[in-house]
Amino acid sequence: MSTIVAVGSLAFDSIETPFGHVEQALGGSANYFSLGASYFTKVQCISVVGEDFPDSHLQTLKDRGVDTRGIQRARGKTFHWAGRYGYDLHDAQTLNTCLNVFEHFNPEVPEEFRDSEFVFLGNVAPQLQLKVLGQIRRPKCVALDSMNFWISGQREALIEAIRRVDVVIINDGEARQLTQTHNIVEAARNVLAWGPKVLVVKRGEYGALLFDRGEMFSLPGLPLAEVKDPTGAGDSFAGGFLGYLASEEDTGNAALRRAVVYGCVVASFTVQDFGFASLMSQSRGAIEERYRKFVELTRFHV
Amino acid sequence: MSTIVAVGSLAFDSIETPFGHVEQALGGSANYFSLGASYFTKVQCISVVGEDFPDSHLQTLKDRGVDTRGIQRARGKTFHWAGRYGYDLHDAQTLNTCLNVFEHFNPEVPEEFRDSEFVFLGNVAPQLQLKVLGQIRRPKCVALDSMNFWISGQREALIEAIRRVDVVIINDGEARQLTQTHNIVEAARNVLAWGPKVLVVKRGEYGALLFDRGEMFSLPGLPLAEVKDPTGAGDSFAGGFLGYLASEEDTGNAALRRAVVYGCVVASFTVQDFGFASLMSQSRGAIEERYRKFVELTRFHV
Repeated sequence: MSTIVAVGSLAFDSIETPFGHVEQALGGSANYFSLGASYFTKVQCISVVGEDFPDSHLQTLKDRGVDTRGIQRARGKTFHWAGRYGYDLHDAQTLNTCLNVFEHFNPEVPEEFRDSEFVFLGNVAPQLQLKVLGQIRRPKCVALDSMNFWISGQREALIEAIRRVDVVIINDGEARQLTQTHNIVEAARNVLAWGPKVLVVKRGEYGALLFDRGEMFSLPGLPLAEVKDPTGAGDSFAGGFLGYLASEEDTGNAALRRAVVYGCVVASFTVQDFGFASLMSQSRGAIEERYRKFVELTRFHV
Repeated sequence: MSTIVAVGSLAFDSIETPFGHVEQALGGSANYFSLGASYFTKVQCISVVGEDFPDSHLQTLKDRGVDTRGIQRARGKTFHWAGRYGYDLHDAQTLNTCLNVFEHFNPEVPEEFRDSEFVFLGNVAPQLQLKVLGQIRRPKCVALDSMNFWISGQREALIEAIRRVDVVIINDGEARQLTQTHNIVEAARNVLAWGPKVLVVKRGEYGALLFDRGEMFSLPGLPLAEVKDPTGAGDSFAGGFLGYLASEEDTGNAALRRAVVYGCVVASFTVQDFGFASLMSQSRGAIEERYRKFVELTRFHV
């Protein structure tokens, strides 16, 4: 079992959906990733929060086994994201992104984290992702997530970061925007030509698609009778996905396929409630039970 | 092996996509269904064409083993549909629907067809679907397809038809529109409460979803490097799906799951070219080869 060093945001989110809205909810890519991965392995979290961020939430992360020594507290306000979802609960429309303490964030990876072999570069500025990666001594499997904010604002820097990683995890709209092509197979060819061995395309309620050195794997989403809030689904997917790989210390094709299933399992819990209420209250047994639901959902005799 | 009696349209289609357009192309739900099913069993086709419909195309259907004795030729023009697809090639925007000879169509099922146990009620007016069904002596498995044109125009009549069938095959947007609910699991519950045992939800590039007496099965679509025209994908899906079931004379859950795969196989050929050029030029071997691609695409170790 390997630990994972993960950089990403801790944030306050304001979210509108047709089924309700929340203001200043705790969130962020590092939060959702860490909680998702916590069912599989120990996450060493790198992030920054402002003076307004509650200590109690850092304790919540610790209670899930997350190592919070890499989370700095800086003067000013915590990162804030405001978004809105329509009835399809698919792509978020970003209403506002306030970087706040992330504007002057200089990530410092604690000495105790630097021998981790699994690294997650969550959705923060590409240069911050590379600053973290540069401090890891012998990374074996580096996964990167990003979003439209960076694709439209810092595309070249993002591609530079992508050239340095093994696995890219983005959603279908982002894959198309990043590669400036419509067809998803074509988009995958472009991303893999930049260097990564693996691309995972997240597709919301439609599951996920894996491109791994010439092989494709596709998993449909689990149809749920109630979906409340997709925020954090993608980051918690990445947590389940990379958490499983790190726990097995295996990045072969069979492990990658299973990791996609675990990613979708974790994301399916996330969307069932606002924020991370459902995500953080599962057990490993509940994870395995839902894994079997995916087996039931997808099996057919050859 | 059972034959299938299938009613549906034979049509001229005018189609715009971002990748090209065609005018007055041969099409229609009966055409795509029959060609899709022709790889599995004999289809007995019920339809009507106008004076402008070419004999050569009836010969094309016969060459694929389709029994065309139930196709009437009437005074006037053949059914015409005009539609447009955007870059996602997902839902068609209907630009124009001219029923023409379908306005006064009185379907007559030839005596030789009336003992068929498998029936496909393709996308025509609900009362025409019921007129055909009423002429079948001992139907064992009746599947119905429809589209937004009838859902918005004749919803009550359509629900009456649905109450009489075993399998409903529609796309996700239609399922939501028909049941006036957003969630697809909820939509399925509503449709099955009307009487059918099985609902198949077609999802375009995302594959298909099967609800069968409490069990769910989901198959992702096969990612294709080139998709030219989705017209007929849904009807040819139904052809592969019901064609397989009729060829096996089996409607158990395992057969239904395999039938969904065959439906997606056939539809994946349809979309690779405009019209039915690709759909009609396959072999049973090519169908089986692509079935194995779906196995490769979806398998994971438990």
